[in-house]
Amino acid sequence: MKLKLASSYGFCFGVKRAITIAENYTSSATMGPLIHNQDEINRLKDNFKIGLYTTLEEVKDNDTVIIRTHGIPKDDLKLLKQKDAKIINATCPFVTTPQQIVKKMSQEKYSIVIFGDATHPEVKGVKSYGDDVHTVLEPEDFDKINFKYDRIATVAQTTKKKEKYLEIVNFLILKYKEVRVFNTICDATFENQAAARELSAEVDVMVVIGGKESSNTKQLHDICAENCPDSYLIENHADVDLTWFKNKNICGITAGASTPDWIIQEVVDKIQTI
Amino acid sequence: MKLKLASSYGFCFGVKRAITIAENYTSSATMGPLIHNQDEINRLKDNFKIGLYTTLEEVKDNDTVIIRTHGIPKDDLKLLKQKDAKIINATCPFVTTPQQIVKKMSQEKYSIVIFGDATHPEVKGVKSYGDDVHTVLEPEDFDKINFKYDRIATVAQTTKKKEKYLEIVNFLILKYKEVRVFNTICDATFENQAAARELSAEVDVMVVIGGKESSNTKQLHDICAENCPDSYLIENHADVDLTWFKNKNICGITAGASTPDWIIQEVVDKIQTI
Repeated sequence: MKLKLASSYGFCFGVKRAITIAENYTSSATMGPLIHNQDEINRLKDNFKIGLYTTLEEVKDNDTVIIRTHGIPKDDLKLLKQKDAKIINATCPFVTTPQQIVKKMSQEKYSIVIFGDATHPEVKGVKSYGDDVHTVLEPEDFDKINFKYDRIATVAQTTKKKEKYLEIVNFLILKYKEVRVFNTICDATFENQAAARELSAEVDVMVVIGGKESSNTKQLHDICAENCPDSYLIENHADVDLTWFKNKNICGITAGASTPDWIIQEVVDKIQTI
Repeated sequence: MKLKLASSYGFCFGVKRAITIAENYTSSATMGPLIHNQDEINRLKDNFKIGLYTTLEEVKDNDTVIIRTHGIPKDDLKLLKQKDAKIINATCPFVTTPQQIVKKMSQEKYSIVIFGDATHPEVKGVKSYGDDVHTVLEPEDFDKINFKYDRIATVAQTTKKKEKYLEIVNFLILKYKEVRVFNTICDATFENQAAARELSAEVDVMVVIGGKESSNTKQLHDICAENCPDSYLIENHADVDLTWFKNKNICGITAGASTPDWIIQEVVDKIQTI
């Protein structure tokens, strides 16, 4: 089996940074999963004693608490600051940007649209910084929305597809006199997506490695499936089914922004046994 | 010959307003042609003694000068104010809006893009209100442009097609972190365009009446030609060629925003002789 890695894949700047921060604070705990990759979280737990809190109530005095890459809602941060805990902020700077934009645009009396998944922690965090903030995934979602103001500002979840973001903002531009479009989609996401698009067009089978909760991994899988119907989303080498490669010549590999190199290597090793 | 008028056509709010203003100031002169329709300008001259200045030097003390519907450049207005003349502003309020946006966005340190014809008086006027202002018609025009700032604000010539404006702003959104999109395309233009699109799809021959210099008339003709290859742009009844209607059953008629009803009626009368 011939293997080919995408020209850009895996860990983005924000994830690398968060892991480096966490490794420097052994015996701390993260507020929510640090990144969307259970294997890497297990590694941090085993090697660096990094714990995991899922609710604020679990935080005890003198704890060192690391804020996850995706950020947390404004009020949670406020409550955390009221506790006698040391707070280490590992929020990706590219996520802090839309948080600050939403805050500023709310102060300037814009209604705000986030293009993203309402249930995703990053989006929940960004949304919490504004007043009249609405989350959409499709132009049809606007049917249910009444904006408070007639000027609209838009941000996107950092891991979304740019083409779809344009659809959303175009809908708004045709309806509103002013639409202030902030392109908060992360370049790293975009680069991984462009590389996945290119590679998936030239292989027989495509393996996308990443957390099942990871938004950017799901986007990568969607992009690959457009070009290569035999595209599989896996979390790690245990998910690899060797029958996928029967009668195939070239296998492409890419990985989401939360997927560490060691997991990718284990997948490569397993496929190479064929 | 069966004739059908578009559900929306002809004079827009700004043109109606400018003509009413002019009719109230007999023996005045307009700075540049009041609207893009020579026949109507002749009528105002004959019936209301409205003269026409093409340069500021022609303005004499005690003159009453009417500013044209498309507006004039900021510096021309300043020079005009220095003369001992009475200034009547007939600039369409929908043109004043992009002028004020360009002024404000320049003050806030945005580079500005006008989607429009650089040679059109409206665009020249709007452009004059800003500092780093660039005029484009196609995304390729950006190749030659170096923006002074990294935040972009955009306005459109009031008579342009919305679909093309989206192309321009989409190009910018993919490249810049913030694009502040002002939809300054006039609803009246849009309504005339939508009605022309609908009507041209159901007729054999289409007649578009308007000034040859009129941007919105040319747009109407382009839209009609997409649906109906036998679409003709004429200024008045004298341009009608009766051979166009040979072997045709239904003729659609629309008119640009500067075309008065009496010119449309003369065209209708001529075609109805068939």
